[in-house]
Amino acid sequence: MVNFAIFSNKGSTLLSHIKIVLVETTHPGNIGAVARAMKNMKINNLWLVAPKSFPSAEATARASGADDVLAAATVCESLQEAVADCQLVVGASARSRAISWPEITPRACAEKVVINKPEQSVAIVFGRENSGLKNHELDLCHFLLRIPCNTEYSSLNIAAAVQVVCYELFVATGLQQTTLRVGDKGESPLATVAEMESFYTHLYEALADIGFMHPDKSKSIMRRLRRIYNRIQLDTKELDILRGILRMSQDNQKSK
Amino acid sequence: MVNFAIFSNKGSTLLSHIKIVLVETTHPGNIGAVARAMKNMKINNLWLVAPKSFPSAEATARASGADDVLAAATVCESLQEAVADCQLVVGASARSRAISWPEITPRACAEKVVINKPEQSVAIVFGRENSGLKNHELDLCHFLLRIPCNTEYSSLNIAAAVQVVCYELFVATGLQQTTLRVGDKGESPLATVAEMESFYTHLYEALADIGFMHPDKSKSIMRRLRRIYNRIQLDTKELDILRGILRMSQDNQKSK
Repeated sequence: MVNFAIFSNKGSTLLSHIKIVLVETTHPGNIGAVARAMKNMKINNLWLVAPKSFPSAEATARASGADDVLAAATVCESLQEAVADCQLVVGASARSRAISWPEITPRACAEKVVINKPEQSVAIVFGRENSGLKNHELDLCHFLLRIPCNTEYSSLNIAAAVQVVCYELFVATGLQQTTLRVGDKGESPLATVAEMESFYTHLYEALADIGFMHPDKSKSIMRRLRRIYNRIQLDTKELDILRGILRMSQDNQKSK
Repeated sequence: MVNFAIFSNKGSTLLSHIKIVLVETTHPGNIGAVARAMKNMKINNLWLVAPKSFPSAEATARASGADDVLAAATVCESLQEAVADCQLVVGASARSRAISWPEITPRACAEKVVINKPEQSVAIVFGRENSGLKNHELDLCHFLLRIPCNTEYSSLNIAAAVQVVCYELFVATGLQQTTLRVGDKGESPLATVAEMESFYTHLYEALADIGFMHPDKSKSIMRRLRRIYNRIQLDTKELDILRGILRMSQDNQKSK
């Protein structure tokens, strides 16, 4: 099990070079939901290009605790202004274009932005809810980001799209740690082969005691049972419980 | 560049064995947003356990064209009912638990569900907006799904969480095209939740018969045993063997 908590401190640094830019968002609720989606993934830098209504109570309500992201958001008049200091600009879009733009998926984008070149300053731009980005805005973008989805119903809610993209960026900060794995704290260690063998011997005896082991079938039954219990990778605490059951069953037999 | 459009037709078949289950959702807008998030990723099977308000105009508005998913949704009274026919149940949760459940990430879940064993029927369960899933509901789950995120602000909007999970499932249908695994021939089908519940009832009785169940400990012991056996995903043949052992143990008790 990968423990993502260990990435959390590093994550904020790894993602601080990324800004999310919303262009002419119509519904203030969406701005709030975007702020929440960003903060969930440790991305805090929000730019709003000519929002229809901001600040707004509806945005704050939907931000649901990510109001610090809203409060720190920068409002500006044009996309050009928002991305002026950026080295890489990625425009999210569901629309097909007459001129085909170089496209990347969110995962490839995360790899590019977080893993390959974490030092560049990056903007990921989301267009209007209904009409996306205009061509002159796309001209500012290095890549078009396309989220894999149902081609017959491809328009994600803007906050849902931001969630997917930020999620991939956050996951990439974990991968960047070279997929470090930490054992679950407080868990008992996994049983060793020797402990499992001793369990199987005990299991065989207990099953024989209750008359479950026909001589001609015992081998194949034990093989099946091994297959079951090996597949689980029992920890020592779990093994203790199962052996407790076997002991209790045997004690019962003896008292007959 | 991967062209995801080519996966779209196959996707609907690959994902038709998956249902999304929402437990006691409070805000109808969230139900609509979930339907949209699902349909964006070609997942159409929605179950609602005791929703506070459904159908509702707010749900339909937020579904934004995914009202067919809402119209086809199944409403039921308990999670048990919703997952009775499922072979794998994954519960989404942000909360830490006293007993740690086996956890998987959305990506590992998608690999398990779409790539490794695409023939099993699967439920992915999302709890209440404020309080998630209760322990007795978690008992029905094989795995806890945890979305990697900011540990200091970890509560995703429910539709955002569904979006991330369905996105990973959809992306996996693309990956599945290249890593297609042939199902294990001659294997028995995996046990359903209903079959496992019946096994747990039987297990409890057999353990009580041999005196293993102290009244004050039985609950936590049963929870630990569930954790063990849910983790394995028993097939029906294996379940037969284990139930045969329980029956034999009980017959022995009676003959005392």
